[in-house]
Amino acid sequence: MPDSITTREQAAQADATDPLARLRDRFDIPDVTYLDGNSLGAMPSHVPAKVADAMTRQWGNDLITSWNTNGWWELPSRVGDRIGALVGAAPGQVLCGDSTSIQLFQVLTALARLRPERHTLITDGANFPTDQYLADSVARMLGLTVVRVSPDQVGTVLGPDTALVAFSAVDYRTGERWDAAKITADVHGAGALMSWDLCHAVGAMPFDLDGLEADAAVGCSYKYLNGGPGAPAWIYVPRRHHDVIDLPLTGWQGHADPFELEQHYRPAGGIERARIGTPPVLAMVALDAALDVFDDVTPADIRAKSLRLTQLVIDYADAHLPDVTVQTPRQPERRGSQVSLAMPHAYEVTQALIARDVIGDFRAPDMLRLGFAAPYLGFAQVWDAMETVRDVITTEAWRDPAFARGSAAVT
Amino acid sequence: MPDSITTREQAAQADATDPLARLRDRFDIPDVTYLDGNSLGAMPSHVPAKVADAMTRQWGNDLITSWNTNGWWELPSRVGDRIGALVGAAPGQVLCGDSTSIQLFQVLTALARLRPERHTLITDGANFPTDQYLADSVARMLGLTVVRVSPDQVGTVLGPDTALVAFSAVDYRTGERWDAAKITADVHGAGALMSWDLCHAVGAMPFDLDGLEADAAVGCSYKYLNGGPGAPAWIYVPRRHHDVIDLPLTGWQGHADPFELEQHYRPAGGIERARIGTPPVLAMVALDAALDVFDDVTPADIRAKSLRLTQLVIDYADAHLPDVTVQTPRQPERRGSQVSLAMPHAYEVTQALIARDVIGDFRAPDMLRLGFAAPYLGFAQVWDAMETVRDVITTEAWRDPAFARGSAAVT
Repeated sequence: MPDSITTREQAAQADATDPLARLRDRFDIPDVTYLDGNSLGAMPSHVPAKVADAMTRQWGNDLITSWNTNGWWELPSRVGDRIGALVGAAPGQVLCGDSTSIQLFQVLTALARLRPERHTLITDGANFPTDQYLADSVARMLGLTVVRVSPDQVGTVLGPDTALVAFSAVDYRTGERWDAAKITADVHGAGALMSWDLCHAVGAMPFDLDGLEADAAVGCSYKYLNGGPGAPAWIYVPRRHHDVIDLPLTGWQGHADPFELEQHYRPAGGIERARIGTPPVLAMVALDAALDVFDDVTPADIRAKSLRLTQLVIDYADAHLPDVTVQTPRQPERRGSQVSLAMPHAYEVTQALIARDVIGDFRAPDMLRLGFAAPYLGFAQVWDAMETVRDVITTEAWRDPAFARGSAAVT
Repeated sequence: MPDSITTREQAAQADATDPLARLRDRFDIPDVTYLDGNSLGAMPSHVPAKVADAMTRQWGNDLITSWNTNGWWELPSRVGDRIGALVGAAPGQVLCGDSTSIQLFQVLTALARLRPERHTLITDGANFPTDQYLADSVARMLGLTVVRVSPDQVGTVLGPDTALVAFSAVDYRTGERWDAAKITADVHGAGALMSWDLCHAVGAMPFDLDGLEADAAVGCSYKYLNGGPGAPAWIYVPRRHHDVIDLPLTGWQGHADPFELEQHYRPAGGIERARIGTPPVLAMVALDAALDVFDDVTPADIRAKSLRLTQLVIDYADAHLPDVTVQTPRQPERRGSQVSLAMPHAYEVTQALIARDVIGDFRAPDMLRLGFAAPYLGFAQVWDAMETVRDVITTEAWRDPAFARGSAAVT
């Protein structure tokens, strides 16, 4: 582990030797400390020009021919491969499109269909709500029973009736990171299939989907991938399942021969069968451009800096914030790229921080959630933000009525 | 009916008195005659600036706060209402988002659930493939039987087991427009529910969803609404079904209290329950801007010009194209906003026309499909395009090997 950072001088020193510091200039960020990249990543500076080109030249001038001449048709698989490279998926196994909720419906249904003789779907009762809601919906349609358990307790509920298990790699509230290798192996040991939701992992840390032999995965692209608000999600299906995976959202673009316009669905070969309807071209062009940032950095490099940033925050809280409880695990390997701090009046504190240009978010009932996007954050900057947290708490600045409840944040 | 147009002089005269001619300047279109707006509408000139603002100011500068301060959260219902106004839906009944395929899955499943004692789903065997594929997929999941019939023959198959009927308002190949009022009434007379796919109607003609008492509708926004490539689709559910409609894609944004992040899904009131995951903000901003074109024109005005344009084409084909068969109905009320011309070597003719800056599309096996977007087309322009069609056919210019098969168009 790198040296811990317990003074501002050490933080400044860490910046001076930070190999990722060069990435900061690739983003347009206002004069704030943005600790909400786990909700909506910041904008890479070159994205607007790429989208403007997609509008004015490709749509405006080239019109319908752009599907061929400007590569629109290939966007879902091409962008999918770029995302796949960040989560340990060899090319041809990730397709970009739609929302995480839609991709969850695809994955949960399709995996259950691969185990028709089993009737239990396991999810995490602390999983992000959409993961739980879609699990319940799929279970209802297919006649399955949903069992909720914390990922580290999955061994207590796995059994011969378990068809599939669907967890998130990182708990969206606490920032706890699960032991994906052990869990996947345990699930496979029970003869069941494993799907991972990587919304809070992709772009923030390595993940080894192929190596784990995960059976499916989904993720968004508007958090640590910085793809823009509502950027399209993605789905991973490993090659070994391609010939048998039976996806329920049988849109025309996933057909084996979409321009023959046949009456009956025949799925395309490979990951192309995960296409549904017409993809959101402008949004996918924005995401494609945003991914350029990752051409010059590895997930391992990002992870190393992220861990050092979150360690700084945990150490600071332990030393200087007596009324605050760190909810995120202290062991690096069990930590995502965020730190969740439980405290009295967390909602008001979050608002007071935003007023002081430290942007985090609140999670009910009592949590300030801070996300750390290594490509555009600095150590001294984060140190100063923590000083602001201390100041807001010790001066009780959060008591200003302007910071009382009344608005809402978005995950 | 207005006077028919059988000479170029009459076409120029029609332009001189065209009340929609002023709309042409609101689009950026290259120097071509674009007759493929039924696949991808042209770009309104002001869209790029609106999207640039959504990127640079809203995303880049305001970051996560934009969900509240820049109205991102309200986009799906606000844009939905604007679309609703064009298809006869009072506010609060249309939600914008996802793709037509996804919305079809929502609608077909939800309507079938409203008639659980019935087990037949009727669609059109000539419906656009994605409509048929999703009907088959939903039927499989819910244990229904799919019956395919032409909309004008629906009376021959309606019965006590019919749960729902899902047709398109306009046949995407032939351009035939169905009698939506009679069909909806017949379906209701059999105790079944009716869903309309308005992809080839919205933005091109009036439709009266509320007046017809349709039970649901879907549509895209990248054709006659000019929302951009892959622009988000929309769903209509009439108010009378809001308390009971049971949609399968239970994403977190459709929850009654999405920020409470509960374990179990409770659908929101009103059309908000049709929200699924995080909406594609940039794409929806583009669409929102594109809809401004419709602030100054009524669907009835668009329809009147559209009918006159298509009549011109039909009359021209009858008079000057002996080897061409008009596949689109000649009665105005049975015609959509396109003309489909069957002819020998239609693929090659389509390519030769594109090379001469007349952009239509080919539909297997033998059809040149021409779409007419009244806001940006002129009568003399269309006349000249038909002269080009005649020239390509009579000179056999399509025999150039450059126009042989090998590429593909997109609906």
